[in-house]
Amino acid sequence: MTQLDIARNGIISSEMNIIAQKEGIDPEFILQGISDGTIVIPANINHKGIDPCGIGNGLSTKVNANFGTSSDIGNIETELAKLHAALDAKTDTVMDLSTGGDIPAIRRAILNKCPVPLGTVPIYEAGIAAIDKRGSIVDMTPDDMFDAIENHARDGVDFLTVHCAVNQKTIARLKASRRLTDVVSRGGSFLIGWILHNKRENPLFEQYDRLLEIARKYDVTLSLGDGLRPGSLADASDRAQFEELLTIGELVDRAREAGVQAMVEGPGHMPLDQIAANVQIQKSTCKGAPFYVLGPLVTDVAAGYDHITSAIGGAIAAAAGVDFLCYVTPSEHLALPTPEEVKEGVIASRIAAHAGDLIKGVPGAWEWDLEMSKARKNLDWDTQLKLTIDPQKAALIRARQTTGGSGCTMCGNYCAMELVSEYLGTPKKVC
Amino acid sequence: MTQLDIARNGIISSEMNIIAQKEGIDPEFILQGISDGTIVIPANINHKGIDPCGIGNGLSTKVNANFGTSSDIGNIETELAKLHAALDAKTDTVMDLSTGGDIPAIRRAILNKCPVPLGTVPIYEAGIAAIDKRGSIVDMTPDDMFDAIENHARDGVDFLTVHCAVNQKTIARLKASRRLTDVVSRGGSFLIGWILHNKRENPLFEQYDRLLEIARKYDVTLSLGDGLRPGSLADASDRAQFEELLTIGELVDRAREAGVQAMVEGPGHMPLDQIAANVQIQKSTCKGAPFYVLGPLVTDVAAGYDHITSAIGGAIAAAAGVDFLCYVTPSEHLALPTPEEVKEGVIASRIAAHAGDLIKGVPGAWEWDLEMSKARKNLDWDTQLKLTIDPQKAALIRARQTTGGSGCTMCGNYCAMELVSEYLGTPKKVC
Repeated sequence: MTQLDIARNGIISSEMNIIAQKEGIDPEFILQGISDGTIVIPANINHKGIDPCGIGNGLSTKVNANFGTSSDIGNIETELAKLHAALDAKTDTVMDLSTGGDIPAIRRAILNKCPVPLGTVPIYEAGIAAIDKRGSIVDMTPDDMFDAIENHARDGVDFLTVHCAVNQKTIARLKASRRLTDVVSRGGSFLIGWILHNKRENPLFEQYDRLLEIARKYDVTLSLGDGLRPGSLADASDRAQFEELLTIGELVDRAREAGVQAMVEGPGHMPLDQIAANVQIQKSTCKGAPFYVLGPLVTDVAAGYDHITSAIGGAIAAAAGVDFLCYVTPSEHLALPTPEEVKEGVIASRIAAHAGDLIKGVPGAWEWDLEMSKARKNLDWDTQLKLTIDPQKAALIRARQTTGGSGCTMCGNYCAMELVSEYLGTPKKVC
Repeated sequence: MTQLDIARNGIISSEMNIIAQKEGIDPEFILQGISDGTIVIPANINHKGIDPCGIGNGLSTKVNANFGTSSDIGNIETELAKLHAALDAKTDTVMDLSTGGDIPAIRRAILNKCPVPLGTVPIYEAGIAAIDKRGSIVDMTPDDMFDAIENHARDGVDFLTVHCAVNQKTIARLKASRRLTDVVSRGGSFLIGWILHNKRENPLFEQYDRLLEIARKYDVTLSLGDGLRPGSLADASDRAQFEELLTIGELVDRAREAGVQAMVEGPGHMPLDQIAANVQIQKSTCKGAPFYVLGPLVTDVAAGYDHITSAIGGAIAAAAGVDFLCYVTPSEHLALPTPEEVKEGVIASRIAAHAGDLIKGVPGAWEWDLEMSKARKNLDWDTQLKLTIDPQKAALIRARQTTGGSGCTMCGNYCAMELVSEYLGTPKKVC
């Protein structure tokens, strides 16, 4: 039974209980959300030792960190280093997007060390294996695709990105949309190439029930991928993007009917004033399915700093109701990230998630800021450093200039809060 | 004559012409904006060699970088290094907030090397000099304050932060507001301490005409400071903040009547869903005066990363109509910034400003992203690196893993854009 089946039977699973406790929310609320499909728990029955994580309506916004090899670079050791960097920075989930080296071995090594939900994109492995076996990605067979999916599921992957809605109709709309940066989703491009070359329908769409069977067997959560994710501001919110979204919405319905948990992936590059509308339309067309966005990146021009462009978009998205943020690192658009950049990406996304949680009214979000500001008012540096999002970095900055005074070197002897409380007669210490 | 006087005489000054050219806007529009007070040109008649910069309605969002010594740390050399870091990162203006060492000498050394508008907060110098001369900040005389202001103006400072609206009424409202982090503005705290200790009205409020005379003489732009800027999310948008804003609005009117250019400073720590409302209320109550915000910081908990919390708030603010963003560095709340952190702060604010300009429809903003995305689609790396916000950092990231392929190491052989254009039949190159 999947978590969805369990919830529909009115049973609160141990995973639901753990999540309720972590989120400070009534387990009945979690049960109802899972039953309705507005909350998912990506927890493959074969992922041993997973610490369950809930994603969706009413819960804190979660953060995902991507890593993985490419054909150019990376191996098990480099990717495990990135896993640990991401976990140290308190990511909620990770995705292994490896497309180079021994992909199954890397995945298994990561799963073995991964207490958080792990996601993958099995079409990468299927496409790359097809190059070796048959000469080209477009020579993949439908069985190659489903075999890869089943292998990932059997290994214990908790959520799978599957580009099921890239189909003949979506591609027709894509062509009519006359985009600047047609397709920037790798998985999407594999399938679009396959569909056009073979003049056949997308097997993941055509044989969606076969996919649902696998997902149900292992309780894999489907992350319905947006192969037509806009790759530039110019392409944001276009007809191609929404055609795919409408189809995804239908596939959400079918997943729920089959007892399979599903969430929905979204943009991408997007001007900041379009983000809230996109969230609303996703929520309405996908009947409240958890929304998982990449960024959004609010400008195209900041390669080297796309963790910041994404933090801007991610905060706005989270505040508007997005449930799950996929991080972007400073090396996006340029190279694979280093472990240090993985950390920077996770922290930037966690800031965005928390900025959104403050608006959503997530339990505990406001209290965190309140405790920090009380410690700031009290010039209680130990508590400030403990409460900050990255205590290690904050301590390093403070340590390099500590003067022994009660304030910090920024204001030296002229700490506004210290100066004024004497005259205002307000308490020196608040609690 | 100030730029405001000149504009009111219907004359387009050389500064207005230069700004019109830089912004790609009709000089008549600049003239009208200055005449209405919705645009300012901070350009002291004594600041030799300044490259004029316009701030306000219809223009691109500008970015300011703060630096300066504290009583603990810094000297002329350290602060000149930060000036150069800020200029290299393409800040639009800088502020010298020195409160340690030989403050006038630091200011003059900076002015001497500063092609962009320079701002200062003269009350720092007045207050700190009063400690030496008279024993305490609260022993400042009104003449001390105005002498400092006149000295800064005479030296050639282009815009002065003056906390004129911190007065008896504002303080009464502050007390009744029962804030968590009463006052976090240093200048504000100097004046509030002075007012309460001496049981007198704020001389900068009481003798505002005297301030206007000085400003008019040198064409110094007044930056009407918000001494009651919220220092925590808990204090955002409270009655104390808006009491001060209403008074600032009245002082804007009086500045305009006196032929003095004025802009308005704003928050501060603020939940992201309050930012747009704050911009609207500032614009309405201050009759379209340019709005200059610090951040806003959308959470209190990210010391070490407050350039990111501020980029989130700044982007939302700029999109909502804010004209001028004061950067925040990663060391905010912890220590004075290093030159590298100055750079990080400027770049983060420039990203925020540009994300806002895309929404405001600032001339050239959309075209920048379009050119970048065309270069990305064309896999034209030279143009991508040239167009990115920090070409040096982007080139370093790309260089560390270059493979000689047409794509990047992120996707290696499986570049989505490359894979799919073959099958879609879309052009390999766009222009």
